[in-house]
Amino acid sequence: MASRAKGDNTAYGGLAARFAVAREIAREAGALALDYFNRRDSLVVETKRDMQDLVSVADRDVETLIRNRVSAAFPEDGFLGEEFGLQEGHSSFVWVVDPIDGTSPFINGMPNWCVSIAVLEAGDPAIGVIYAPRHDEFYVAARGSGATLNDKVLKLDPSRTIRNAVTGLGSNSYVTPDVAAGMVRDLLAAGGNFMRNGSGALMLAYVAAGRLVGYYEPVMHAWDCLAGYCLIAEAGGWHHPFPSDRDGLTRGALVLAAGPGAIEDLRKLAGL
Amino acid sequence: MASRAKGDNTAYGGLAARFAVAREIAREAGALALDYFNRRDSLVVETKRDMQDLVSVADRDVETLIRNRVSAAFPEDGFLGEEFGLQEGHSSFVWVVDPIDGTSPFINGMPNWCVSIAVLEAGDPAIGVIYAPRHDEFYVAARGSGATLNDKVLKLDPSRTIRNAVTGLGSNSYVTPDVAAGMVRDLLAAGGNFMRNGSGALMLAYVAAGRLVGYYEPVMHAWDCLAGYCLIAEAGGWHHPFPSDRDGLTRGALVLAAGPGAIEDLRKLAGL
Repeated sequence: MASRAKGDNTAYGGLAARFAVAREIAREAGALALDYFNRRDSLVVETKRDMQDLVSVADRDVETLIRNRVSAAFPEDGFLGEEFGLQEGHSSFVWVVDPIDGTSPFINGMPNWCVSIAVLEAGDPAIGVIYAPRHDEFYVAARGSGATLNDKVLKLDPSRTIRNAVTGLGSNSYVTPDVAAGMVRDLLAAGGNFMRNGSGALMLAYVAAGRLVGYYEPVMHAWDCLAGYCLIAEAGGWHHPFPSDRDGLTRGALVLAAGPGAIEDLRKLAGL
Repeated sequence: MASRAKGDNTAYGGLAARFAVAREIAREAGALALDYFNRRDSLVVETKRDMQDLVSVADRDVETLIRNRVSAAFPEDGFLGEEFGLQEGHSSFVWVVDPIDGTSPFINGMPNWCVSIAVLEAGDPAIGVIYAPRHDEFYVAARGSGATLNDKVLKLDPSRTIRNAVTGLGSNSYVTPDVAAGMVRDLLAAGGNFMRNGSGALMLAYVAAGRLVGYYEPVMHAWDCLAGYCLIAEAGGWHHPFPSDRDGLTRGALVLAAGPGAIEDLRKLAGL
């Protein structure tokens, strides 16, 4: 199997087959995550775990489901998940998965969390599927096929800027309080307005849907952003390149994405 | 009618009757707002309005619906709405209404907006109803009757602090970029984490539900916060007093609310 030439995936159907499977898997994974979400209070009591343990169990179970389905359908593909790390493959495809993005909203009972599945082809995010089950919103894109939200085509409006629309911001423990505060100050001082809903992947999907005009987070992992990047590119937006070598995929990098009318302002905000 | 003694509302059924009517009206108002929300793209095309005009129309229509229903049921009560201002009454009750809180999410197609209805009795927020139709979440509280979300009793957990839970922050054009940035920096430096979903009323409902451990916004209007304050008090939380004289009701004031384990940290954050 390892001797199969890179790119020889005809037996497996190439990108289109993976796109179909990614959508199926995202639906199934979202339903499993939603079941955990709806039962989280009683599960904490029954299992005598705390909420943080419970979300770890849910995260692992959902990632395992996705990994098993991918491995059954495309055994030669690589797989990178938040919970179990990188398993290298022998095709040109790597699946990059965040089983539950927005664990803080998930733990705390808020609806804004999602399942995020990207497929890289030769390092490029060629498929992006983001499913927010509690919102009943299903975002999908594949390279050259456009992006949709619940089957409605997404096409970004170039007249939207940081001054007439909202920008998403994110930060995490890698970012100092002064840097996080500086992002807020600089965006407001430039005439913008910000939102932070606790799920970076979902906020990137919102950029693809034109709900946010951009998203900036100084450091983010591949599994948090690559599905969103594919959605945004297919909707007519722009994103900063993400390093797709092994180091970049596992370490994380600056994440910046924008609709066409916000690129220059947001590049300036991020110091690019 | 004006000579009726303050508190003499037996003909109108007092607080309990208003609580029942507030819940009914919130459902009806939420359904009307949701209809605008679901049709907003086609309405922009049909009416040749822009999205900002459209939300103004929706806001006014929903407030008018609420005002008409209140006036029919309790003609002596005062009424303060975001869109049409204060109409003084002759009973001890004043209804304080934000027809659509979170107009920025509403305009941009995000689900996090709500209808907020408070009833003050002798200046005290005695009823709070917040309905988020796109989330199918209905928060209600009346003084002495507790708070519920979709009929589930809300009771805050004193073990939650700014360090093990999430705090909501808000700002608007009254707040300078430096002040907004300072809130973020100080909260993160104290070990906290923040969220801002674009609807202050909904974030206050989240405090009542224990989803956020507190909420701080330097300046907020009465219609944005009083329903949330009633919910939070009935769930076992604390809020900073809101000035209930005519000036306070129409001008706005500092808003701070917290679960029992976050009061001191958040008072410090707000400089109280």
